[in-house]
Amino acid sequence: MNCAILSVGTELLFGNTLNTNENYLSQQLNMLGFNVLYHHTVGDNPLRLRESLEYLREKTDLIITTGGLGPTEDDLTKEVICDVYHNKLMLSNEILGSIKAHFENMPENNVKQAYVPEKGHILYNNQGTAPGFVIEDEGKIIISMPGPPREMKAMFNQSVIPYLKGLTDEQFYTKTLRFFGIGESKLEQELMPLIHGQKDPTLATYAQEGQCKLRITSKTNMDVVLDTVNKVKDLVGEFLYSEDDEELVDVVGRKLIEKGLTISSAESITCGMFVSTLGTVPGISKCLKESYVTYSNEAKMKLLGVKEDTLDKFTEVSHETALEMALGLYTATGSDICISVTGYAGPTGDVGKVFIGIKYLDYVDVKELHLPDRGRAWIRNKTVLTMLQMINKVI
Amino acid sequence: MNCAILSVGTELLFGNTLNTNENYLSQQLNMLGFNVLYHHTVGDNPLRLRESLEYLREKTDLIITTGGLGPTEDDLTKEVICDVYHNKLMLSNEILGSIKAHFENMPENNVKQAYVPEKGHILYNNQGTAPGFVIEDEGKIIISMPGPPREMKAMFNQSVIPYLKGLTDEQFYTKTLRFFGIGESKLEQELMPLIHGQKDPTLATYAQEGQCKLRITSKTNMDVVLDTVNKVKDLVGEFLYSEDDEELVDVVGRKLIEKGLTISSAESITCGMFVSTLGTVPGISKCLKESYVTYSNEAKMKLLGVKEDTLDKFTEVSHETALEMALGLYTATGSDICISVTGYAGPTGDVGKVFIGIKYLDYVDVKELHLPDRGRAWIRNKTVLTMLQMINKVI
Repeated sequence: MNCAILSVGTELLFGNTLNTNENYLSQQLNMLGFNVLYHHTVGDNPLRLRESLEYLREKTDLIITTGGLGPTEDDLTKEVICDVYHNKLMLSNEILGSIKAHFENMPENNVKQAYVPEKGHILYNNQGTAPGFVIEDEGKIIISMPGPPREMKAMFNQSVIPYLKGLTDEQFYTKTLRFFGIGESKLEQELMPLIHGQKDPTLATYAQEGQCKLRITSKTNMDVVLDTVNKVKDLVGEFLYSEDDEELVDVVGRKLIEKGLTISSAESITCGMFVSTLGTVPGISKCLKESYVTYSNEAKMKLLGVKEDTLDKFTEVSHETALEMALGLYTATGSDICISVTGYAGPTGDVGKVFIGIKYLDYVDVKELHLPDRGRAWIRNKTVLTMLQMINKVI
Repeated sequence: MNCAILSVGTELLFGNTLNTNENYLSQQLNMLGFNVLYHHTVGDNPLRLRESLEYLREKTDLIITTGGLGPTEDDLTKEVICDVYHNKLMLSNEILGSIKAHFENMPENNVKQAYVPEKGHILYNNQGTAPGFVIEDEGKIIISMPGPPREMKAMFNQSVIPYLKGLTDEQFYTKTLRFFGIGESKLEQELMPLIHGQKDPTLATYAQEGQCKLRITSKTNMDVVLDTVNKVKDLVGEFLYSEDDEELVDVVGRKLIEKGLTISSAESITCGMFVSTLGTVPGISKCLKESYVTYSNEAKMKLLGVKEDTLDKFTEVSHETALEMALGLYTATGSDICISVTGYAGPTGDVGKVFIGIKYLDYVDVKELHLPDRGRAWIRNKTVLTMLQMINKVI
C-alpha cells in the first residue's frame, strides 16, 4: 500500500524543531510492508494543509499526519481533515473526562481536544491530552496523531501498528542486530558477501550515534533470517551486542539485575552521564548503591584515595589515575563492579584522550581511548558507550 | 519571498537517513527573511520529482532542492529540473577538470556530474564532486545542492547566502523566550490579549519536553519586538528563564561560572542526571568539584550523614530526608550550592512523588513535587529541570 507522511507545524518550517517523526514513521511503515512515497510538511495554515491533504489523498491510499492536535487556536489539523474526509467533529465526553484527569484545573481551551471525528476510530493517548484518530473514507485512509514524539510513538506502537497489520496480508520477518565498535561503512564492507545480490532476506545497515544497526528482513520465513544472523555472527560477531534491537545500556542493565551484581562509578569527564544512563533502566536501583562524580583532584584524593604523587607525576588524565580511581572506588564502596573514567572533553587539554579503569572480581584493566574531537557531547557519549561495552564484555 | 525545500532521496523515505538538511535550511532561510511554506521529500523517482517541482513552482517563488546530484543512474534531479525550468544540460570542461582532480582514476560515471544547466549559475563544491546550480526562469528560481550535509552546508554558506541576500530587502526581527513551570496552553491563555488579532509582531508558542517557547517576530523593527517582550514579562515573567532561546541548563551553568560558585548534588531518583546535564556546559568543571549518587540508604547515611532514625520514621522519600541530604552534602563538600533529590520514578513506590532539598548560603528549602506518571524518563527529566529552575531562582 502506498502512503505519505504529512507533518503539520510552523515550528518545523521555522527550523525550531527537527522532524524526527517522519524518520521514525518511515522506518516503521517500511518494516510493516508499506511504501512511503512522500514526506510533506506544512505550517499551521488551513489552506496549505487542505491542499497537501488533497494532493496526497489522490496520490496514495494512506496518509499519516502528526501535529496540530493541540489545544491552541492555531491547531487546526482535525478540522481540516474532517472537511476533506467528509466527517464532522463531535464532543466525546469520555475523552473530555480523561483530559480533565490530567489537570488540577483544566484550562478552558483544552476542551477543544475532546472533539473527535464523528465517524472516526479514536486512538487513545496515554502520554498526553490530544487523542488521535483514524478515518476511512471512500477507500482512502487517514491516521492522525499528535506531534510530540513521545506521545506519537506510544500511540503508534499501541494502536496504529495493530491497525496497520490488519490492512495488509504481507508479512515481514525481521531481526535487528546492534553493534558497537565498528563503523557503518566497515560493517557493510565486511558483510558485502551477504548483502550483494541477496533478494531474501535483505540486509540494511543504519548508522546511529556511535553505533550501528543491521536489519535483516525476509518476506518468506523466520528461518532464513536466523540463518543469516548466524552468518553475520561468523563475520562480525565480536562487535555484536544485541540480536533484539536493544540499547546497549538495556543489555548491560538487564544482565546486572539478573546476576544481582552491584556497580559503582567514579566519573570525571562524563560527569555522571554513565551512572545517569544506567539509571534509565527500570529496576536498576538495587544494583546501584552509590556513585561519585569526582571532577576535582581534591575529590579524587578524598573520596577515592588517589595519591597526590600520582596526580603530580602522571596528571589527572592518565592510566595510573584511572587505575587508582577504580581501586579506590572499590575500597570506598565494595561494589562488585567498579568503573572509573577521566579524560578531556574540551575546551582545554588533549581533547579526546580518555582513560577508563575497571575492576570486577580479580579482573582489573585500564583502557585508553583517543577519540576524534567531534565536540563535547559526542566524546561524552562515545565514552559512556565504551564503558558500557567494557562491562558487557566482562560480566 | 515564499519558498519551499524539496529533498530528493529514497533513503529518506526508507527512514535510513534523518533529514537534517531541511531543518538547517529552514533555520537559515527564516533568518534571511524568507518564508518557508513547504518541506517536500520524494524518492529517486523522476515522475514524482517532476510533480513536486511543478506543485511547488506554482505555489512559491523559490525552491531549494538537496540530493540526487550523485554520479549513479538513479541520480536524476538535474535532468528533471532542467526539463521543468526550460534548460538543457551541457558538459562543463572546467567542472570535469575539478572532478578529475578528486580522483587518481576517475570512475567513468562521474562524468555525469560535469554536466550543468546551460543557462544556470554554477555553485562550486569544494567538499565533494557534485556541483550545485541556480536557475532563474520566468520569475521563478530554483537552487539545487548535493544531499550530504557537509557538502550542502559549505555550498550554502559560501555561495547561496550571498545570492539570497541579493534577492530580498525584507528582514525579520525576532526574539525567542523560554519558560519553565507553565504549560503551552496556559501560556497561550495568559498571552491571549497579546496574541489575539496582533499582526506585527506575531507571537507563536511551542511546547518542548517539559518547557515552553514563545517566538515574537516582526517585519518592521526590533523595538516593537522588545516592547512586546516587556508586555510578556508583565504577564508571565515569573516563568521566564531566557530571552535568548537558551536552554535552562545553559542559563544556570553560565551564571554559576560567572559568579564563580561551586555546586554539589546528592541524587537518588535522578541517578546522576542532574549533574550529568550540568556537565554538558563547557567550562563548568571549575564549579563542579564533586557530587554523589546515593541510591541506597547506606550511602545516604555514610556519605551524607542522614540519620537512620529519619529514614525509619519518614522513609527515604520525604521532606526530612531531602533536607538532611542537602545539609549533609554541605558538610561533606562545602560547596556553595548543595542540592539533593529523592523520589519515586517507578516501577515501585508512590511514582511521581519527589523531594528536592537546596542549601545556598543561609537559604535552605525543600520543594515537594507530585508529578503525573508519564514514565520514568519524563519524571526524571522534569525533576532535573525543576532542580535547575530552583537554582536559577536563588542565584
